[in-house]
Formats: sequence, structure tokens, C-alpha cells
Amino acid sequence: MKRILVINPNSSAVVTAGLGTALAGFQGAQFDCIDIAQSPATIMTEEDVARAGLALAERIKADPEADAYVIACFSDPGLDMARSLTARPVIGIQEAGILTALARADRFGIIALGPKSIPRHMRKMRMMGVLDRLAGEMDLGGVSAEDAGTSDEVYARTLAVGRKLRDMGAGALVPGCAGFAPRRAQLESDLGIAVVDPVQAAAAIALGAVLG
Amino acid sequence: MKRILVINPNSSAVVTAGLGTALAGFQGAQFDCIDIAQSPATIMTEEDVARAGLALAERIKADPEADAYVIACFSDPGLDMARSLTARPVIGIQEAGILTALARADRFGIIALGPKSIPRHMRKMRMMGVLDRLAGEMDLGGVSAEDAGTSDEVYARTLAVGRKLRDMGAGALVPGCAGFAPRRAQLESDLGIAVVDPVQAAAAIALGAVLG
Amino acid sequence: MKRILVINPNSSAVVTAGLGTALAGFQGAQFDCIDIAQSPATIMTEEDVARAGLALAERIKADPEADAYVIACFSDPGLDMARSLTARPVIGIQEAGILTALARADRFGIIALGPKSIPRHMRKMRMMGVLDRLAGEMDLGGVSAEDAGTSDEVYARTLAVGRKLRDMGAGALVPGCAGFAPRRAQLESDLGIAVVDPVQAAAAIALGAVLG
Amino acid sequence: MKRILVINPNSSAVVTAGLGTALAGFQGAQFDCIDIAQSPATIMTEEDVARAGLALAERIKADPEADAYVIACFSDPGLDMARSLTARPVIGIQEAGILTALARADRFGIIALGPKSIPRHMRKMRMMGVLDRLAGEMDLGGVSAEDAGTSDEVYARTLAVGRKLRDMGAGALVPGCAGFAPRRAQLESDLGIAVVDPVQAAAAIALGAVLG
Amino acid sequence: MKRILVINPNSSAVVTAGLGTALAGFQGAQFDCIDIAQSPATIMTEEDVARAGLALAERIKADPEADAYVIACFSDPGLDMARSLTARPVIGIQEAGILTALARADRFGIIALGPKSIPRHMRKMRMMGVLDRLAGEMDLGGVSAEDAGTSDEVYARTLAVGRKLRDMGAGALVPGCAGFAPRRAQLESDLGIAVVDPVQAAAAIALGAVLG
Amino acid sequence: MKRILVINPNSSAVVTAGLGTALAGFQGAQFDCIDIAQSPATIMTEEDVARAGLALAERIKADPEADAYVIACFSDPGLDMARSLTARPVIGIQEAGILTALARADRFGIIALGPKSIPRHMRKMRMMGVLDRLAGEMDLGGVSAEDAGTSDEVYARTLAVGRKLRDMGAGALVPGCAGFAPRRAQLESDLGIAVVDPVQAAAAIALGAVLG
Repeated sequence: MKRILVINPNSSAVVTAGLGTALAGFQGAQFDCIDIAQSPATIMTEEDVARAGLALAERIKADPEADAYVIACFSDPGLDMARSLTARPVIGIQEAGILTALARADRFGIIALGPKSIPRHMRKMRMMGVLDRLAGEMDLGGVSAEDAGTSDEVYARTLAVGRKLRDMGAGALVPGCAGFAPRRAQLESDLGIAVVDPVQAAAAIALGAVLG
Repeated sequence: MKRILVINPNSSAVVTAGLGTALAGFQGAQFDCIDIAQSPATIMTEEDVARAGLALAERIKADPEADAYVIACFSDPGLDMARSLTARPVIGIQEAGILTALARADRFGIIALGPKSIPRHMRKMRMMGVLDRLAGEMDLGGVSAEDAGTSDEVYARTLAVGRKLRDMGAGALVPGCAGFAPRRAQLESDLGIAVVDPVQAAAAIALGAVLG
Repeated sequence: MKRILVINPNSSAVVTAGLGTALAGFQGAQFDCIDIAQSPATIMTEEDVARAGLALAERIKADPEADAYVIACFSDPGLDMARSLTARPVIGIQEAGILTALARADRFGIIALGPKSIPRHMRKMRMMGVLDRLAGEMDLGGVSAEDAGTSDEVYARTLAVGRKLRDMGAGALVPGCAGFAPRRAQLESDLGIAVVDPVQAAAAIALGAVLG
Repeated sequence: MKRILVINPNSSAVVTAGLGTALAGFQGAQFDCIDIAQSPATIMTEEDVARAGLALAERIKADPEADAYVIACFSDPGLDMARSLTARPVIGIQEAGILTALARADRFGIIALGPKSIPRHMRKMRMMGVLDRLAGEMDLGGVSAEDAGTSDEVYARTLAVGRKLRDMGAGALVPGCAGFAPRRAQLESDLGIAVVDPVQAAAAIALGAVLG
Repeated sequence: MKRILVINPNSSAVVTAGLGTALAGFQGAQFDCIDIAQSPATIMTEEDVARAGLALAERIKADPEADAYVIACFSDPGLDMARSLTARPVIGIQEAGILTALARADRFGIIALGPKSIPRHMRKMRMMGVLDRLAGEMDLGGVSAEDAGTSDEVYARTLAVGRKLRDMGAGALVPGCAGFAPRRAQLESDLGIAVVDPVQAAAAIALGAVLG
Repeated sequence: MKRILVINPNSSAVVTAGLGTALAGFQGAQFDCIDIAQSPATIMTEEDVARAGLALAERIKADPEADAYVIACFSDPGLDMARSLTARPVIGIQEAGILTALARADRFGIIALGPKSIPRHMRKMRMMGVLDRLAGEMDLGGVSAEDAGTSDEVYARTLAVGRKLRDMGAGALVPGCAGFAPRRAQLESDLGIAVVDPVQAAAAIALGAVLG
């Protein structure tokens, strides 16, 4: 059976456990979800992103026989570096989440955890060449990835932001974090438009790559 | 278990059987591959595309309880219409193939069956907003989807075109048809860059949608 | 004298009569305005658009000797299919209206009949590659093409929307329907910017093509 | 009867006479074709373009009652200035030629008189936001607008360049000068794709504006 | 020592003196700041821009031995013409201001003197191909370049507009005039983001060109 | 006197000395050129880029009082991270070189040291939003930054590549490395178009920022 290494580039075991939960229903390959002990508990600053990228590169070099790799942080740390180190598929969850949203609807929206990540997402989306399909990006005012998937209060904010993005023309939404899976179906049902969990999106693309 | 309806919008049972083969390794949902008896054996003209789209809409209306739908023709016939008829995921293989290629590499290339489909793909890719990431599109001179996946002579041409697209900067290639799966792994190995079968790409995205 | 076939792809004789009125002042060619009896009275859904496209293709095949064809529905149903069936000019009113607006001013605005057509227009405008010149699109809340050209109440709404689009930077406006000609000059006068009736725009381009 | 002032911004009476010939078949308005005595015989340099623009502005100020204005030089000299001087339609032939080509086919090509005008056209087309639809631009090696419409040797070169642009994907061609009308129909027939004379295109759009 | 000719294309000696003040700290080349006596005191209309361009071309022809030229008016009058007249560097302050802002931050904003210049800037920015990085452009309601750099009341408005543009995502701001240098550092300090004086930006680029 | 820290993110003292030579003529601020001892002698791989970025961030944190920072490696390693660590200007030479080329001519070209850096540049230029102005990028087949500025054989190749890019429409060229300054003037003279040394371009923009 093929093996997909899902790397949480921070050191939060809660987040890593959440990855396993998000992928519990996926079959056809073995998903190994790991974190990186020496990383900070959350990737917040540009420097965190850079350090996470290098730590992640080391993990790929240490496990070169995985059939595919998923970078399970919405900043896609080290994605290009990882691809230079292995010929096997490397999927970043930001890219996978956005591209999967584009496979579901004409225009998409991003729900960011906080305002500071929006400029980083904008640069990335411009690099991806997908800005013409962005309906909008709004943030939750600064919440953690864990709360995004578990807190009722945060969910209420998420729903409010989602309604605005839908009214701005988004036909699919991507929460900008690794921990939203527990709320995905509920938000999709409440809004009536597609909601794409970026971890599940990346796992599905990785699965398609190793099964193809 | 979730059920994904994979609709070959032409009437070729050979193509439909090929869809089943392409998806043989996929688990976690049931993939029902069907064709449309009243369609022509191949979708070639703009009028074929239009008629296929309407026939496909009828099939979706006749089976509204599938958990997701895949339109298994590289022209994505009837995609927007299908989405207007159901709130469930509808995935077109052209979109899925291209977007999955974008999740694998920075620039992509298309290998078209023949020259006449290139202008249609160009329009579609401009509508998708992904032209800035297109390294190039070249064609095989006019071959059938069946031959694309089975003929050695056509494979030799495919490899030659693939080398040119790789030299033009493509880091991932998408064959522009529904029948290439039998040759996907070989072409990927011969070229050293990602090759994305659009049917498998669409199936993986549909799978991620129903499992999420 | 050259003959231009102006096809209303719905079955409303009122709309067809309106086309004749809109083109009453045009000379130098004969404009034959027809409708399609088996079509619905209004083109509203994606399925309507698809069926209208096929019906329109049949009309072109049935009258292959017209010197040019105008598709007089703002969704441009069947435009690419029609072009694949004849080498003679085929002009869609959405494309003609927008492109003529671009010949009049740097940025343009669209006044849609209702909110549901905006996503369809966005896709089309992205496919046309003209989004960088769009000042904005707003809708009238859901009115018919007939009312757009005749109702005083609808005109008041049109004027209000037009003012907003002008303030957003539009130097030329395009009403998104086939029936606005009776109000065109008044709106242009009230707003002080160009207002382009898409039927007249398409007729003028078709006329230039057959006289050139 | 409405009156359209067609201004040749150079002093060549031959070119002006050619405008009249190009528009001989147009009805429904009076087309007055004039030139500007103090201009050079040909607009070649950037300075020529700037001086032509100012001379043209004076002509518009001297004849403010024309119902529309056409700037009949492919550099569209003074177009924005002219629009700031009158609320009436002002149509430039480069813009009109390109936009009309876009109403005829998905991708277009330009045939320039010489290599020096290509960078100017590129800037203009980027400003117009239409570069994504440009199949290519090639030049005739440096010929006059007069020769473009009359010389058999130049026509042979035009045809060769047109074939290359068609092979590059152009579905409509625009000769980049005011004098091509005498050869338009022949080139269209020889190539099997649309050929748009920019003077006729501008005249048709102006006609549509004054008749609407 | 290299000599850079800084041309104020209007006739205001106050503006010209302001250029000298803005560049007082620059070393390594001689900056000659001149105005054009026959120009109007302010460049406001499209016709002003056109006449300023031609007057500026004459000044360059009259002083062909300067090592570089700076066009010190935010409309960049005559820029392309100037480049056609000399092989030496010609820098326009609008282009230099915007491009320098792009070297400082991912997204930029423009503070225009008044609403009428915004459409002209939009056309120029589209021609420059930089619209995807524009956070927004807002205006001061119609003030002079002199007041922009000297009036406390205007500064208060500038600060308010700057805050809005920063909130819209601008990481660097460009005041759209030649006279803002006296307030540049203060606005940068008050807002906490980069503020680029376009005259200083052009001078720095010209300096780099002649020292390289 | 203001101080600008120019950081060569590799450990080559030859490259660092070259930076000093390139900036020898610049006045008005003190340029301190340093390298990073623990870095490799050349930045070649994606991993080199990532490590260089972090080392560079440490240098900025260790010297927070410089008035501006220049990252003197054409990959702009750590640029966004550096900007998150200081409010003072941080200029990357790739961005500065390209943006300065855009201030000199409408379209630009890049001369890369080798083929492997082209995909990285393409991603960066797409992120910068400047691809519509790229005439082309070609490489020298794999040479070192030192040889780019000193070897006669490499210069001959550079000239040949420069001619091709000029023929493709480039009006300004940017060599893609930190060591080209010794040959800049010669290449500009041989080609007759602007050649921008990216180190000098970045220094000029930094100088403008600290003097403004």
C-alpha cells in the first residue's frame, strides 16, 4: 500500500491529531501524520515560515521513500524547496485548497485566521496566477487553527464572514488553516456553497497521484 | 458508501470501460461509470459538445442522488449547466486535470489529441484564468482518445511532444483526453516530470469532496 | 443588398419586434429579425441557454446564405457553435456590446437584469479577457428585458444603478439585455456618459462586416 | 442626417481619398473625410503622433457639431485628448479594428507596416487590456499605408504574414494602417479567416453610435 | 560630473524650486531643475499634457548632452516621445514613483490631487501592467501640487486618505504630484508604511543610471 | 551620514569585493558590503536560498540601526522575512533590477546564469505581476556570477543572448546575478539598449529612500 507523509510543520500534537481526524475517512493509501518537535507550536511570523520550511525539508530527506508528501500548513512552507529535493509529489495545502475550490466553482473566497496572513496569501495567490477568480478574502480577527475547528464562538464568526464572501460572489470557500475539518460540512450546509478543507483537498490530490 | 457518477458523455463502451480501469485503484467510494447511448461515439465538434452537455444534464436529473458527478470528457460539456441543476459536486476533467497539474508544478503543458481542440482549450483556460501558468499546448496531429492510451505509435508521438513541452518549461503535463490512464505512469517515468491523468484527477477531487 | 439574420433565441414576439425597432434606423443592409418558436419566452437558466444555442444552430443551418448573423440574447447562446457551422460573421450581442463600450471609453459597466446573470457574465468577461477594464456590474433586482426598455419604474432603478457605476469609474455602460434600445438615448443623456445598446452594437459590427 | 467627421491626421490627399473609398458602401450617415494640411504626409515618429494629436484636437474644436468623430490613423493620435474636448463619440481606428476583430474571433493578429510600430502597438494593446487574446503581431518590413492597399508585391508579403499569424492561432486579422480596405476582401478570401479593415470598423461603430 | 536635467513641464517657478529642494540631499551628479516658460502654470487637462509633452521634447532636443532626463510631472508627459529622441535615460516620475513603491512593498496606493486624474492614472497603470499590485487610489478632492507639500489642511486630508489606503492593503504610498517632498517623511512616520516621493524616486533611478 | 548595509548572502569575498566596486561611484550614503561566512560560496539550490534567507535575517537583527538594507543575491533570499523584522527599507536586487528596467523601457529581458534559475525567476516575476512586460528570459548555459562580470568568453555569450532578447522586443536588460557591473556599460554600448546592473539599481533605490 502506498504511503503519504502528511507533515504538520509545527510542534502542536493537537493539530497533528486533527490531521488524522480530517483524513480518517480516506482509504487506498496510508496517511502518516507527523509534526516537527523543534518547531514552534504555531507558524505565525515570516521567520516561523522560513524555519518551518527548512525543518520540513529535513523530514523529507529523512524519509525519502514516502510515495507523496503533504505540507499541512496554510503558508505552504518550504514547498518549492521540497520539490527540489524529491521527484515524488509534494502538495501544499494552500495550493491544494484553492485549486480544489476552483474545481468546484467559478470564484472562491478565503477565510483567514487573522489579518496578518492576508498579505502573505495575496502574494501567494498572485504567484499562483489565480487572483482573477478571487471573490474576496476576509479574516476572523485573529484566532488559532485549533479554535477554528472547535470553538462555537469562532464558528459564528466564520459563518458571518462566509455569508459576506458568498454575497461577494464566492461559490466555494477555503478556510485558511489546517484545523477546520470538523466544521467543514456544517459550514457548507449553513451557507449552501462548497467549503473545501485544505488538508482534505491536499490529501485527495496526493491520493490521486499515488493511485494513478 | 458514497457513490460518484462518472459520466462519459459519448456512446463508446470502450471509453467507458477505460474509465473503470483508470479508477480501479480508487477506494472509499463507489465509482459508477456510464456512457450515453444516444451520443456520438466521439465528441469532436462544437455541436457535439453542446449536445453532449444537454444529454449529460438529463442523466444528472435522472440520478439526482449521486453524491458527486464527474464529467469525463476533456471539453467539460455542460459543466455550468450541471452545476445549476444540483448542489452536489460536479467536477469536469479538463478543469480537474489542469488544476491538479498546478498543484504539482509551477507551469503546465497540455497534449491535445488534435489541432482543432487547441482553440477551445485556450478559451477555456482563459476563462479559468490560468493562462499565465501555461508553458504550452501541442497536439498529436489528430488521434482518438482510445489510441492515446493504447497505440505504441501514438505513444512515441506523445513522448516527443512531452519532451518539447518539458523543454518549454512545463513541470506537469495533462493529456487532453479521457483515455490516457494506461500510459500515464510510463510517460511520467520517461519524462521525469508529473503527468496527470484528468480522469484520475477529477475522481480524486470528487472523492475528497464526498469524504470531507 | 446584403442580408443580416438577427436571431432572437427565445420565442417572445414582443422581444423580436423590439429588435426591429432598435434597428429601424440602420441602412445599407436588410436586417431580418426572427425568433424561435420552440424556445421558452425568456432565456433564464443555464439549460435555457444551452437549448437556445442548439435551436439557434439549427436556424443558421436552415438559412446558410445570410451574409451575417446576430445572436440577440445577452448570454450569447451558441456563439462558438455557430461560428463552427459557418464562415460568415456571427456576432453575439454581449461581446459586441462590451467591445463597443471599450471603443467608447476606458472603463465600462454592466447593468444586469438580475443577480443570477452576474456570475455568468463574469465567466464570459474573464474568457473575453476584458476584466481589467470593468468598472463594475450591478443588477436591477430581477426584471424582464421587456420592462427594461419600457417601464418607468424600472428606468428609475436603471438610472440609479447607472449613477453608481459611473461613480465607480465607468465611462460607458452596457445594459445586459436585448430590449433596452427605447431608453438608450435617455439614459445616456441623464448620465452624461456613453450608453451602448448591445443589439445596435452587434448590428453595427455586422453591418461593417458585410459592407467592408 | 447625422454627420461623422473622419479625420486623417496626416496631409496625404491620397490617404484621405482612400478613406472615402473604404466607406463608399456605408449608408445612414454622412461621412466627411478630411486631412490636416499642416501635418506631415505620413505619421511615423512618436513626435509625429504627438503633433498629429494636437492638430486633430484643433479640428474637433473647429467643428464641434459633428455627431461623431473617427481618428483615421492606426496610432490613434490624440484619442484621449479628443474625448476630453467633446462628449460626442470619438473612435480611434486601432481600438475599433482590434475590438471588432475580438467580436469576430477568439484570438487576433496584427499586420504592422514596419517593425518600429510594433512596440507602440504593444503598449497600446497592454493599455487596452487585450494582450491575452493576441495571437501575434508581425510586420511587412516597412511599407507605406498606400502601398499596403495597392501594391501587388506588398500584398504577397501581406498574405505570407497573414498565413503565419493564422497558423499562430489568429482567427481575425487587423492590418495596422488606414489604407488596406481595397485588399480586405481578397485577403479574407485567401486566408479563410476574418480580416477587419480598421477604418471600416471605426466607421461602423461610429454609425451605430449615431443611429442608436 | 554627470548632469541630470530635471524638467518641470509647467511654468511654475515655485514648483521648480520645490524640485531643487526635494533633491538637495542627492549627491554624485548635478541636478539641473528647469521649467518651461511657455507652458501653463499647472498641467491639468489632457490638452495640457499633450502640449507639455511637445514642449518637453523641444527642451531635450535643445540640450542633447545631458546624461539623463527626468520628466517631473506625474502625468509623465511626452515620455515615449522623449525616449524616441535620445538614447540616454529618460525617467518619468509617475513610473519611477510607482516602480519604487513596488520595490518597497507588495501592494501600493496612489494619493491623487483630484478625481479627474484618476482615470488617466488607471490607463497608465494598466499600460504599465501593475494593476494587480494596486491596493487603491484615492484623491484629495482637488488641490494643487504646491498645497500638497505645504498646506496643513491638505496634509490632514492626505493623512486621512493614507490611512484608508493602508487599511486597503497598501504597504507603500505614492503621492501623485511633483511637490510632496516636504511632507514625505512626516507622512511615512504618521502612517508607519513607506511613502515614496516620485521626484526623489526618479532622481535616484536616474542617478543609478548615470553612475552605473 | 546614512548607512546602507549591502548583504551578500553567500560567503564569497570575491563577490563582496565586486559589490564594493559596483558601488564605488555612489555618494551621499555609506555602503557597507558584507558577506555571511557560514553560507556556501554560491547560492544555487532552493535549499541554499532558504538557508541564505535565514542567515540574512540574523544579520539584520544583529545590525538593526542601518538606514536601509540591500539583499545582494538575485534570488532575493529572505526578502519578505527581512521586511517583517524591520520597518526600514529592504531592497532585493532582483526586484530592483527588474523594476528599474521597467523605468527605462516598455519591455525587459533577463539574462540568467543558467537554466535552473529560470523557473524560480518566472515564479518571482509572476508574483511581482510584471510578466506582461517580459520580452523574454534566456540563460548563459551555467556560469558563475564572477565569470559573468570578468570572463571574455562569457561576455561573448552574454552579448549573443542580449542580441536575441533585443530582437524579441526587450528595451532594457537585467543580468540575473550580483557580479555583472564591470561589463554593464560595455553591453549597453554594444547592444544600444539599456542594461541595468541589479546591484546598482538596488543601491540607487535604497539611496533614494534614505535621502528622501
